[in-house]
Amino acid sequence: MKKSLIALAVLAAAGTASAQSSVTLFGIVDATVQRVSNNGGPSVTRLTNSGYNSSRLGFRGTEDLGGGMSASFWLEVGLNNDDGTGAATNVNNQNTANATAAPRAGTQGLTFNRRSTVSLAGGWGEVRLGRDYTPQFFNLTVFDPFGTNGVGTTQTLSSIITGPTAVRASNSIGYFLPGNLGGFYGQLQYYMGENANNVANKKDGTGWGGRVGYAAGPFNVALSLSRTDYAAATVAAASAAGGLGGAAGSNVKQNNIGGQWDFGMAKLMGHYSWDSLGTTDAKGWLIGGLVPVGAGEIRASFSQYTVDNAAGADPRSRKFALGYVHNLSKRTALYTTYARVRNSNGAAAAVAGGAGAPVANGSSSGFDLGIRHSF
Amino acid sequence: MKKSLIALAVLAAAGTASAQSSVTLFGIVDATVQRVSNNGGPSVTRLTNSGYNSSRLGFRGTEDLGGGMSASFWLEVGLNNDDGTGAATNVNNQNTANATAAPRAGTQGLTFNRRSTVSLAGGWGEVRLGRDYTPQFFNLTVFDPFGTNGVGTTQTLSSIITGPTAVRASNSIGYFLPGNLGGFYGQLQYYMGENANNVANKKDGTGWGGRVGYAAGPFNVALSLSRTDYAAATVAAASAAGGLGGAAGSNVKQNNIGGQWDFGMAKLMGHYSWDSLGTTDAKGWLIGGLVPVGAGEIRASFSQYTVDNAAGADPRSRKFALGYVHNLSKRTALYTTYARVRNSNGAAAAVAGGAGAPVANGSSSGFDLGIRHSF
Amino acid sequence: MKKSLIALAVLAAAGTASAQSSVTLFGIVDATVQRVSNNGGPSVTRLTNSGYNSSRLGFRGTEDLGGGMSASFWLEVGLNNDDGTGAATNVNNQNTANATAAPRAGTQGLTFNRRSTVSLAGGWGEVRLGRDYTPQFFNLTVFDPFGTNGVGTTQTLSSIITGPTAVRASNSIGYFLPGNLGGFYGQLQYYMGENANNVANKKDGTGWGGRVGYAAGPFNVALSLSRTDYAAATVAAASAAGGLGGAAGSNVKQNNIGGQWDFGMAKLMGHYSWDSLGTTDAKGWLIGGLVPVGAGEIRASFSQYTVDNAAGADPRSRKFALGYVHNLSKRTALYTTYARVRNSNGAAAAVAGGAGAPVANGSSSGFDLGIRHSF
Repeated sequence: MKKSLIALAVLAAAGTASAQSSVTLFGIVDATVQRVSNNGGPSVTRLTNSGYNSSRLGFRGTEDLGGGMSASFWLEVGLNNDDGTGAATNVNNQNTANATAAPRAGTQGLTFNRRSTVSLAGGWGEVRLGRDYTPQFFNLTVFDPFGTNGVGTTQTLSSIITGPTAVRASNSIGYFLPGNLGGFYGQLQYYMGENANNVANKKDGTGWGGRVGYAAGPFNVALSLSRTDYAAATVAAASAAGGLGGAAGSNVKQNNIGGQWDFGMAKLMGHYSWDSLGTTDAKGWLIGGLVPVGAGEIRASFSQYTVDNAAGADPRSRKFALGYVHNLSKRTALYTTYARVRNSNGAAAAVAGGAGAPVANGSSSGFDLGIRHSF
Repeated sequence: MKKSLIALAVLAAAGTASAQSSVTLFGIVDATVQRVSNNGGPSVTRLTNSGYNSSRLGFRGTEDLGGGMSASFWLEVGLNNDDGTGAATNVNNQNTANATAAPRAGTQGLTFNRRSTVSLAGGWGEVRLGRDYTPQFFNLTVFDPFGTNGVGTTQTLSSIITGPTAVRASNSIGYFLPGNLGGFYGQLQYYMGENANNVANKKDGTGWGGRVGYAAGPFNVALSLSRTDYAAATVAAASAAGGLGGAAGSNVKQNNIGGQWDFGMAKLMGHYSWDSLGTTDAKGWLIGGLVPVGAGEIRASFSQYTVDNAAGADPRSRKFALGYVHNLSKRTALYTTYARVRNSNGAAAAVAGGAGAPVANGSSSGFDLGIRHSF
Repeated sequence: MKKSLIALAVLAAAGTASAQSSVTLFGIVDATVQRVSNNGGPSVTRLTNSGYNSSRLGFRGTEDLGGGMSASFWLEVGLNNDDGTGAATNVNNQNTANATAAPRAGTQGLTFNRRSTVSLAGGWGEVRLGRDYTPQFFNLTVFDPFGTNGVGTTQTLSSIITGPTAVRASNSIGYFLPGNLGGFYGQLQYYMGENANNVANKKDGTGWGGRVGYAAGPFNVALSLSRTDYAAATVAAASAAGGLGGAAGSNVKQNNIGGQWDFGMAKLMGHYSWDSLGTTDAKGWLIGGLVPVGAGEIRASFSQYTVDNAAGADPRSRKFALGYVHNLSKRTALYTTYARVRNSNGAAAAVAGGAGAPVANGSSSGFDLGIRHSF
């Protein structure tokens, strides 16, 4: 069985000269046996994915343009390796598409839902165009010991009320500060809803997010602010369809501040978030940490999210999560996590999606036992 | 036109250290001009795919973990290269999703429907998680001279009544014996339907399959047994929708035994299968062989499948198939196959799907002329 | 961060021997900020893709079979890198599938809609099977300074009435003349609609296209003729649904002749097209050119398309387009284009799709500012 090398593409399209290039192929396949039990609601045991890191398949590359400049691309598919499906993306940062029926189970093809960008970079920083994470999401995942994956995902994301741009945005133009600012870092992202100018909700899905931070030695702290526009009627309709939180309103704001300190024997981290959806506010926080243990790592967090309903009762969900990751190598790890959500004031959050929910004020618990393999 | 090498991915995700890795990119593009004529029904001539081997595009890799252990992944897309579409997968080993309309023609994206797994292996064997072939399918394809592809596909698969897990299962946990057992081989697979525990058909789509065999010199024989759970009502509804065979019932069993003897100048093979869908039984068999001829190979088989209907008449379909494969290289082959199905007792099986069917008791014939290119 | 090589696949499928192989991975990520203004209709600003070259991700390879023969494959995905979606393909060269609802926004997975072929080639030319460009499309794109991409796309394609096979065809069998005929080149393509033989519109979507040309030194000229069959009733229904032009009829013909002369300081090009859809005729033309300017290139064109309606008024759309491409390297370019369409006799063509249309006889203008990165 002989092996040979992958010769890379030289573009032969009309009008485009050929050039040498290189592509990096990368990915993660993460499978987990997950058990979720919802008090007063359904329980389920399943093989699912992304309990530790999100499963993905990606293609990326960078070209040196000389003079400190470079161009690069990044195309990354999210994949459900338990059944082979891909995941949908969002083309306009809005929920209005929900008028159409969801695809038949098993038919969702692969999309570059995780990231599809082209960049130009230099000493002045990087301009990035396409679909990407929003800055306002970043503080939640970076300062969550569970990296917003699996049953341990911070409740400040699991219960978040901010809708389609809570994690990623399409049609975005991003700017990143260069890496040589003495520990300061930052980014600004503008994204478009791309509605025609002659409709009432023409600004729906258009917004911006920013993030600034400072990292030095064991210390890292960052602040993120954002705003996405939605007309009141649109949000009300989307909420009725389960799309945007649970309340009528207009614009969406998602803000947070997070930080961590690496003590060597443990890394402590936390974040605080304040979000709004029209006239509805919500606040959340997390404290947690990572403790290296030989080839492994203990992970723990305590997080909370409270929605300040105009109606009176402020539904609140609190999650405790504890886990252990055992690294078989740098690429392959076994992991297990236990998490429990306690709901009050009418909240009914489940520990993980897709498996039903507890009754109001019921608790939900979940368990992951999985393997993460990266390449 | 210069060439450069694909540099492989080093994972840069938070919390995951970088590591050296390698990925194998592989695939098959198989195109065939196919003519199907159905007695009393429609005929059609088309360019289709997978007449000799199933068209696919895949990514796989193995990491040596030391101490005889290894981790690996396998992601494999099925593709219809005549028109560029992908193929749907099945997320829960059930047909219930058929309540939703099928995707518009031409819109089915690529999925890892053929296989999406992550494995951990050692001297003790291999544990494999994800979507994979079922063991009960394997004896049919291994002991079919046409490898269950093209118009020559064994009738024991073409008419099979066993539904969603007849070929592959999602959400599976598989175990494979190591390869050093003196010719003995075997595997066990458990797969989950992942229904909530508070519904009547909570076990639908959950099942297991096993396979044991022995291979030595020219001889190879294997037995496979399996069972998948479905509540009676579910199967009845699915059958009405054309999903699961043609009869109401409850659980599904798919069993078979197959073997082959390589005489050098010819390889003879055969299998016998006994399946059931609730109270409906079915039995099938195949005899066939492969005869090397210079750079090519003659393929022939005779197969039959009979459904033991409670209603009385036992619809039976018999297929004769004859083909020739001419290898232009180890990777590229031209092939042609002729097959004819004779139906009796009310059966109306066509020689290949997607082209209508003959009238009851009518015959169907098909012809493939194609090229298979692998990479 | 170490790098290693991608070891290529050696097929391990039953009955197929292993062989050495190589795969080329290639692609383009092209993002553009696009502004479209429609007189009397909506305007929109968006981040979109393929303003200069069509965004894509592809896999291809060639195997030397010896004796001057070779086998090859080509699988190419079209991608919308502004949001991560793929694009639908067409499985039968017909519009009849439009009875089914379009996929929910954001769910369209990747397909090999741009090309999925397997070829056998030798001194006698190349036979190519699968989905590919139609010959009748080629003269339009090769002899358009804007390569039928972005707001500058020739009006002879933007307004074309010829339906599903105007650009590509599935289920095609193509033949290409070899490259050593002293400047003469040519191809013939037959494609199938694959309908059953017992329906009235059994020939729908079946057709052929041919192209012959001559290139020598600065000179290049080519002629293309084609015909696709559709029954009158089918076309009428499709037209009502917006599928095929705007008139009832029967067969479709798409013909054109194009040429260019490279003066060194400028490349002049033009084409003339005559199409028909049943009893409706249409005629179009383009003149334009490319002018190298240092590391860049100025592009300009003037094009027109007129539909000869039986009803009387002959709707006509005229486009003027002017652009500049600045090459940062052979692989990466910045570009900008301005285009304006003037409509008369009731036409209402927009400068780019997806952003609404002007009122009848209104004008439409568009602007692209983007980056094209290839790999």
